[in-house]
Amino acid sequence: MKYIALICLLLSSFSGWASSIIEGEDGYRLWLKYDPVTNADLKTTYQQQVGQFHVAGASPTMQVIRDELNYALGHMLNAPQEVEQTQAALVVAAGDKALRLAKQYQLDLLAAGDQGYLIQQVANPKRPAGTTTMLVLANSDIGALYGTYRLLRQLQIRQPLADMAVVSAPAIDLRVLNHWDNLDRHVERGYAGQSIWDWHKLPDYQYQRYTDYARANASVGINGTVLNNVNADPLILTPHYLSKVTALADLFRPYGIKVYLSVKFSSPQLIGGLDTSDPLNTEVQQWWKDKAAQIYRDIPDFGGFLVKANSEGQPGPGDFGRTHAQGANMLASALEPHGGTVMWRAFVYANEKNEERSKQAYSEFKPLDGKFADNVLVQVKNGPIDFQPREPFSPLFGAMPDTPLMMEFQITMEYLGFSTHFVYLGPMYEEVLQAETYARGTGSTVAKVINGELFDSPITGMAGVANIGTDRNWTGHILLQSNWYVFGRMAWNPEVSAKEVARDWARMTLSHDDSAVAAITTMMMQSHEATVNTMTPLGLHHIMGAGHHYGPAPWVDFLGRDDWNSVYYHRADENGIGFDRSPSGVNAVEQYYPPLTKLLSDPSTTPEKYLLWFHHLPWDYTIESTNRTLWNELVHRYYAGAQTIQDIAKQWDSLESVLDPLQFRQVQMAMDIQVKEAIWWRNACVLYFQQFSGKPIPAELPKPQKTLAEYQKMSFPHAPGQG
Amino acid sequence: MKYIALICLLLSSFSGWASSIIEGEDGYRLWLKYDPVTNADLKTTYQQQVGQFHVAGASPTMQVIRDELNYALGHMLNAPQEVEQTQAALVVAAGDKALRLAKQYQLDLLAAGDQGYLIQQVANPKRPAGTTTMLVLANSDIGALYGTYRLLRQLQIRQPLADMAVVSAPAIDLRVLNHWDNLDRHVERGYAGQSIWDWHKLPDYQYQRYTDYARANASVGINGTVLNNVNADPLILTPHYLSKVTALADLFRPYGIKVYLSVKFSSPQLIGGLDTSDPLNTEVQQWWKDKAAQIYRDIPDFGGFLVKANSEGQPGPGDFGRTHAQGANMLASALEPHGGTVMWRAFVYANEKNEERSKQAYSEFKPLDGKFADNVLVQVKNGPIDFQPREPFSPLFGAMPDTPLMMEFQITMEYLGFSTHFVYLGPMYEEVLQAETYARGTGSTVAKVINGELFDSPITGMAGVANIGTDRNWTGHILLQSNWYVFGRMAWNPEVSAKEVARDWARMTLSHDDSAVAAITTMMMQSHEATVNTMTPLGLHHIMGAGHHYGPAPWVDFLGRDDWNSVYYHRADENGIGFDRSPSGVNAVEQYYPPLTKLLSDPSTTPEKYLLWFHHLPWDYTIESTNRTLWNELVHRYYAGAQTIQDIAKQWDSLESVLDPLQFRQVQMAMDIQVKEAIWWRNACVLYFQQFSGKPIPAELPKPQKTLAEYQKMSFPHAPGQG
Repeated sequence: MKYIALICLLLSSFSGWASSIIEGEDGYRLWLKYDPVTNADLKTTYQQQVGQFHVAGASPTMQVIRDELNYALGHMLNAPQEVEQTQAALVVAAGDKALRLAKQYQLDLLAAGDQGYLIQQVANPKRPAGTTTMLVLANSDIGALYGTYRLLRQLQIRQPLADMAVVSAPAIDLRVLNHWDNLDRHVERGYAGQSIWDWHKLPDYQYQRYTDYARANASVGINGTVLNNVNADPLILTPHYLSKVTALADLFRPYGIKVYLSVKFSSPQLIGGLDTSDPLNTEVQQWWKDKAAQIYRDIPDFGGFLVKANSEGQPGPGDFGRTHAQGANMLASALEPHGGTVMWRAFVYANEKNEERSKQAYSEFKPLDGKFADNVLVQVKNGPIDFQPREPFSPLFGAMPDTPLMMEFQITMEYLGFSTHFVYLGPMYEEVLQAETYARGTGSTVAKVINGELFDSPITGMAGVANIGTDRNWTGHILLQSNWYVFGRMAWNPEVSAKEVARDWARMTLSHDDSAVAAITTMMMQSHEATVNTMTPLGLHHIMGAGHHYGPAPWVDFLGRDDWNSVYYHRADENGIGFDRSPSGVNAVEQYYPPLTKLLSDPSTTPEKYLLWFHHLPWDYTIESTNRTLWNELVHRYYAGAQTIQDIAKQWDSLESVLDPLQFRQVQMAMDIQVKEAIWWRNACVLYFQQFSGKPIPAELPKPQKTLAEYQKMSFPHAPGQG
Repeated sequence: MKYIALICLLLSSFSGWASSIIEGEDGYRLWLKYDPVTNADLKTTYQQQVGQFHVAGASPTMQVIRDELNYALGHMLNAPQEVEQTQAALVVAAGDKALRLAKQYQLDLLAAGDQGYLIQQVANPKRPAGTTTMLVLANSDIGALYGTYRLLRQLQIRQPLADMAVVSAPAIDLRVLNHWDNLDRHVERGYAGQSIWDWHKLPDYQYQRYTDYARANASVGINGTVLNNVNADPLILTPHYLSKVTALADLFRPYGIKVYLSVKFSSPQLIGGLDTSDPLNTEVQQWWKDKAAQIYRDIPDFGGFLVKANSEGQPGPGDFGRTHAQGANMLASALEPHGGTVMWRAFVYANEKNEERSKQAYSEFKPLDGKFADNVLVQVKNGPIDFQPREPFSPLFGAMPDTPLMMEFQITMEYLGFSTHFVYLGPMYEEVLQAETYARGTGSTVAKVINGELFDSPITGMAGVANIGTDRNWTGHILLQSNWYVFGRMAWNPEVSAKEVARDWARMTLSHDDSAVAAITTMMMQSHEATVNTMTPLGLHHIMGAGHHYGPAPWVDFLGRDDWNSVYYHRADENGIGFDRSPSGVNAVEQYYPPLTKLLSDPSTTPEKYLLWFHHLPWDYTIESTNRTLWNELVHRYYAGAQTIQDIAKQWDSLESVLDPLQFRQVQMAMDIQVKEAIWWRNACVLYFQQFSGKPIPAELPKPQKTLAEYQKMSFPHAPGQG
């Protein structure tokens, strides 16, 4: 019977609609697809406006610009031509050449700053009457590259060039990816294959992918990459590996991308032969100075070090009775002569501290405000726990006026469904960046802490934990490319709207059909909220599978530390659910500025999305916005979230005819999984919490197919990305 | 200074010959590139001969044929068209339809057998006068698919179709790849990325790569795949994983590829809840019967089990005092009702046996001859040790007339430079297959054991340990695709010449330029001998790095078992070098038939390529072919091998203008590494052995750049592919 069904399935799948060989867009080209312009009028106009170009200069970066224009215009318009400057419709220039042109056309390059650009169409007296010249000018070569990508985006989204008058400079200095990539190519929390760094074959074997990685990053303004995992292998600092790092740095240099390394604080002991790594020990200090000098001999523009210290078992200055500031400053002093930066993570928590986990980073770092050297950035995760589907912003933002704080977002989907879930993170990043800290009254958003405006920070940064791997489409799921993209766009400009970025991305990557773009943008904008609802609605958090973090497991209570267990976080019991972080509980709200402290202390003034983050509430507590009981609202949100996921999947199916067949199919298969997993999350969580609430699932909702015991029995020892 | 050099390098690489964006053939399409036919006359001829085709039937396999013809002819000739049978220039038919056509044209399909095909051009009375019809006929659908690929190869290598009169049937029944792939996607001895099986995303997410894997295999006649590592995880037999295996089986079925699994012998204990795995225990027997029945319910054409038992720590029947035959037969009995096969590995050796490692498999298995069930194949590695760069054939071939022996070749490059070495294995496979066992006198080649001819074996097989991973080009190095290809070709026909296959492969994969193909074929044919010379000349073996097997390490003497150490194998001392396996030593030669026993007992009648495999000889022993001393010959071969590698690299460079830029560049980068590593092997080995010989490196040869101590200090803890 089953066999017959199988045969029928095979027959239908082969004799019907599809060939076994699907040719199409596999996702490798990301948002730099440069699809041919099919509208003939538009194509002619574009050809006139930029078809004949001139790139002034021959530096490696200007060559990259030349290559990109040849490639991009070649694909979009056919036959681009580099011509003499006086003949060119498009002129790209940097430095003195740009300044001369700016003066000639009375343009001001000041606002473009070091790394920005100006794009402007001007009348050109030397070319036939009425003709114009498109100028892309910058004070630096890399600014010209960024401007070139900005101009190309305009063509990619089929917008007019004539009206362009853009001056843009990045709001943040360090816009860096953090690769949690091990030297054996395992990626911690990676769901898109292996590390793209093939350490074994480096330095000699250099994949085209390395170059395309650099192109993709430069196209969104990312200017740094930390190559290795924050849980660092000390071998990365040995000559054997540094020669490989050097090869990557050489490759990335023309794209304005600096290389950084995660370092293990105990490296002086592990590879240096010293018997201590105490940051106040002069031998240790000298070891790091020598190591820095050695690195800079080969990589003169090396970016610096990222450090995870005294966190989750990693060594740190605390092992020697020193503070994070003492540890960071010792490294900073080694890098300082060479212009390098230390990025020191504030992600610390310890069982023995006897303080609730969400409060510990603040408690440990706030007293150190002002004690860090000038070339140190403290890197703070967006929320106070750990990249949960939704968290309130970390109270450290705004709390350290004399210390530059760097944002750490997670791009990879550790807690959001790995690489089979269609979740656009733009709205989540936006929610965090636009959150009010009230540190200096209204308008003191997290974005203004990060971009240095609020406290006049001398140095600014934003890090994103990369979702990149060797999968052909880079991120395991084409939609998830948008998270790499939006991270870059928001690092350049934290005020940009998530929706605008979604629209640009969808158009460049998936379709030029207006209604398809609109539909996809809507799906993207819904996706995060829907996923939060189906996993951790109403402020729930940290109830996923142990270790691998895959799937629902609110029942986890067996791990070695209290604050690794799900039950620590949801605290469900007969009386209710949620973590009381108000003054009647652990009083985490005290770490926020007024009026937040007060607002978050009271369930009725706490935003519903954070309700159970801050409060333990009875099952019959009334949710204001819906007038439902807490239990009914919780169940409702779980079901509504899973329903939205199903709606998004249906919506995707409806777009088949206007999408590339291979792109369509890839996302469709992932969505089949996502729909199943959304229902799995919903059912497992509702059944689990029902044990405590003792209340029924509202009759109108479908009953879970399995028992709680069956969900609890599921096990995934080989789930990817484990630490 | 270094920085200036760097800048110059960058300038030259950017402003000179190459763009930073290299577009070209990335290797994904393997030998199924189907390049457009550029010769207009030939194209017209081909179009007339096969442009209008008819595939008779609509089974999944016939649909695959239809898809492949549309795709292949579309790329090579443009606009292929499927038409009615009477109008068709090319007709592909199987089964009754084929028999009808064969009868009509007086063709005999008998020799095509179950899986083979017949290709013949016939005059067609129904089409215009003088026109012909190309027939591809087979007794089975899969035979028709093989025939289609054979026909397409003729077009790919630009040979005439008119003269084709091919009847071909596979000489070997089971032509299977062994994937040493773990469930976490690590590939033991894999050097081309991760496992292509994305277990986490299966069964729902099915990469186009799975289909293309099936196409590639079918195109060379491979008809089975063992999905998981012989060091098997018992979880593969749980329902969670079996549903994933089923998805792959469903995908591969239309391509004639059966799925097999490696199983852990102790599965009844590990996942079955039994307290024994004794093959004579009825509960154990029932457990396996139930497991087999469960598998066959979902996969009716499941191939069977591959077992590594009582070998390198794996459990087996020996743990319960039973023989390999008792273990294998118990599994065979569970599979037998469903038509499945057991492939039982003979790769066993144990420290405690007190017998020299090379002799143990023979000693253990020969007494079991005739004791295995009818559906058991004993799978024997080509040589008596372990896939060394060169080994004499295993004496088991020919020694078990009443037991079908299956060949196990290694395709992945565990001992031959991982995936950066250009080594074509065709000549090595050929050397083994054409070796004389003398089991039934002259002409008793290994090939004739394997293909069942010598002993009239009821079932035959050849396994290849796959070199396939997620790397875009599948094998990490484009040239290494040829080893997958030649394995398939030789499994179909063990008598095919390595050179002919090399030529076909090079033409399909790399170039249609005759002189380029000739040059590449020559390089391929030289590559194995050169690599043997630079690693293990004159019969040396097992002197590579410990654990990862990367690089030279003849000094290894610290591993837990004698026969894991290099010094056990080369036995170099002041008196000489080599392993005395003659009657004066461990007498391994007694395991061969006469006259080999005698010939191999005497250094003067032992082939020089196996000299130190069988003999420990003084440093001043005279090598007959060159009249050099053994020391001088050894040094000479190391240098000559490295020199040939350098010559091959230069030869490759000279082909740049006639090759695809991306293919060219990929191989070139790997060759840079290979040249360095050849010199590394040469220097490290010569310096090491010089300690014992006390003799100089001949003055005309360049001196090693480093000291022996420096070579010995090198360490590679993260080398890929470790077990």
